[in-house]
Amino acid sequence: MSKYHPLSEAEAIEIARSITEVFPTGEALVSREIGDGNLNLVFHIKQPATGRSLIIKQALPYAKVIGESWPLSLDRARIEGESLVKQGQLAPGLVPVVYRTDADMALTIMEDLSDHVIMRRGLIEGGTYPDFAEHLSEFLARTLFFTSDLGMNQQDKKVLLGRFINPDLCKITEDFIFNFPYYDAESNNIEPHLRDAAEAVWQDQELLLEAAKLREKFLTQAQALLHGDLHTGSIFITPTSTKVIDPEFAYYGPMGFDIGAPIANLLLHYASQEHWSPDEASRRDRRAYLLTTIVELWTRFERKFRALWDEHGTDRLLASPAFKDDYMKRLLRDTIGFAGAKTLRRVYGLAQVADIATIPDRAARERAQRLALNIARSLIVTNRAASSIEDLVRIAENAASGAN
Amino acid sequence: MSKYHPLSEAEAIEIARSITEVFPTGEALVSREIGDGNLNLVFHIKQPATGRSLIIKQALPYAKVIGESWPLSLDRARIEGESLVKQGQLAPGLVPVVYRTDADMALTIMEDLSDHVIMRRGLIEGGTYPDFAEHLSEFLARTLFFTSDLGMNQQDKKVLLGRFINPDLCKITEDFIFNFPYYDAESNNIEPHLRDAAEAVWQDQELLLEAAKLREKFLTQAQALLHGDLHTGSIFITPTSTKVIDPEFAYYGPMGFDIGAPIANLLLHYASQEHWSPDEASRRDRRAYLLTTIVELWTRFERKFRALWDEHGTDRLLASPAFKDDYMKRLLRDTIGFAGAKTLRRVYGLAQVADIATIPDRAARERAQRLALNIARSLIVTNRAASSIEDLVRIAENAASGAN
Repeated sequence: MSKYHPLSEAEAIEIARSITEVFPTGEALVSREIGDGNLNLVFHIKQPATGRSLIIKQALPYAKVIGESWPLSLDRARIEGESLVKQGQLAPGLVPVVYRTDADMALTIMEDLSDHVIMRRGLIEGGTYPDFAEHLSEFLARTLFFTSDLGMNQQDKKVLLGRFINPDLCKITEDFIFNFPYYDAESNNIEPHLRDAAEAVWQDQELLLEAAKLREKFLTQAQALLHGDLHTGSIFITPTSTKVIDPEFAYYGPMGFDIGAPIANLLLHYASQEHWSPDEASRRDRRAYLLTTIVELWTRFERKFRALWDEHGTDRLLASPAFKDDYMKRLLRDTIGFAGAKTLRRVYGLAQVADIATIPDRAARERAQRLALNIARSLIVTNRAASSIEDLVRIAENAASGAN
Repeated sequence: MSKYHPLSEAEAIEIARSITEVFPTGEALVSREIGDGNLNLVFHIKQPATGRSLIIKQALPYAKVIGESWPLSLDRARIEGESLVKQGQLAPGLVPVVYRTDADMALTIMEDLSDHVIMRRGLIEGGTYPDFAEHLSEFLARTLFFTSDLGMNQQDKKVLLGRFINPDLCKITEDFIFNFPYYDAESNNIEPHLRDAAEAVWQDQELLLEAAKLREKFLTQAQALLHGDLHTGSIFITPTSTKVIDPEFAYYGPMGFDIGAPIANLLLHYASQEHWSPDEASRRDRRAYLLTTIVELWTRFERKFRALWDEHGTDRLLASPAFKDDYMKRLLRDTIGFAGAKTLRRVYGLAQVADIATIPDRAARERAQRLALNIARSLIVTNRAASSIEDLVRIAENAASGAN
């Protein structure tokens, strides 16, 4: 394999056969291509005789979205493979095992997680995940701390940063999260009943200023190696297992962007209860579960991150209790701000979330959309005044009680 | 030249001969090695028959400071050459012309500026430089704006950032500016009469917290391609010409670090007037000139930077007047904070400045040191409350009137 080409299923099987830690015996393998074909090929390779399986993911040299196609660097496969390996070292058991990568062919060969469900799907189907906050807080605390200047040698960090310069995929985030939602961009997907709300955003100077500050942080603040796209569609889950997948957007950025992402998606699901919870009582219970999960996620994250800092902090000047308190306060604020930005773009941007977009009833969908937008706006404009994760809870509760 | 080795003078002449834009004719060349031998070889190559000349700078694979030697990446020569070329494109006439670079041999072949004087030396000798603020504000505004996300495509910026990852030299800055001065580090060079002042710094929790925040910014904030070491020893000057040299510390960092550096060195010179100005009246005049220069430097910088932003800003969301005002306010604060940090380390750190260190009278030297330290502390602890460059002026004036 000297040069890149998209794999055939026969080639995928041939490659899978060489992964002898998964397939030590020679029984036949079968392949099924399960990718959506927009960005990647995904081959599910199974050995029916033994029940063993693995996944081969291959990046395509372009992205297809609503019929359009633009070139996209294959280097994202190297970035995905290398960050999965790094995350696996730092947070064992919380990402798929990587068996092999091939940068030339843009391949990542990894653990099959078909026994898990994509968390977004699981939530829509009413699932609860009691270990999620514990697992994801562990993933976040360890991957963020140990790739930051707080937890690793500063020279090594600069070299690592150089491995994860990711212009193409960062550009997608920059445009779709921090640019297009804030004006009448062609790519926005605004339902007619939401037009007034979108136009209000474009006129909202307070909101635009805070969004610009978040954008600036996303562009310049090289705090830690991020997953970069940590929504509930990037999490495979069961009630007792959590696996973070698809880190092709990995780059050095502000930690709050990664912590805010799952929170935003829990809030979008919170808003979507306008439809998914059939009555007032179940809606209240479901929303309480979601807010408790958010509070637990942050609280456990903060506790773990501080404990890692106390035990493994590499920098003397950055080790004072006053600096730690100040840092964690700013990190909470960033988290709340980025959670808001990541919520807002899902309401009328190009890429929406199934939690809300699949609500069949227009009125219920609109209620969910407006609730999500209200929460998003409040998070963005108040983020730099927040002092506790309870501030976020209050915003969500107040918005929901206003919506009902 | 396939492999690195330190040049002999004969080899330097041989290489110089190939720079035909400087030496179009065949007359003899003579070489004089004028480096200090600690970090680089510097060959001054002259053609006596024509008066033409150039400089060949070659990085050595180690640094020598007070007898100790440690390895230092030769990649800094590539970084220096590439940043000189970049700065020359962005701010023509304000850096030496680069004729050729050779990364394998760690060479930069450039304009001879022997008709200029090192600004630190010129200031100590009582020079005034009426064009300095205009020139350096132009250099800062153009190099910082056009390498930031404000003034260039964000994808290209990420690629450029990757060319200027500079772990070895950043580590020197991190240690000597943001670490060693803040505890009883072996490398500090504390005169016995200053011991109490250094110990006070190490106990000063307010100061330590702000120093930690500045350190964090230096480590994480990839705002623009910095010169990285922009003190008055890195500026060649005449009354009508300013040339910024020696950008081997170049990396992507916070803009305020570059703007604060010349300001810190003007303030150190301000403090050193305890000796260099022979009487009260001349001291007052000299100090007024230095403060006026600082105010002009910032004011012209801000005006030019805003004008570039208005004309060439690449990012829609970051273009609002409110964001610009907020950004410039934060940039002023960073500038003041970094000016303080860069002043403090020169008082009792390893690398001091001739302005103060060469004052022969111990009592006058101590007055200058304590004045510099007082100014530095005030700048560091108040930086995040500053609203105008006049805040810095007041700090310097109040400290000086207390010192006399």
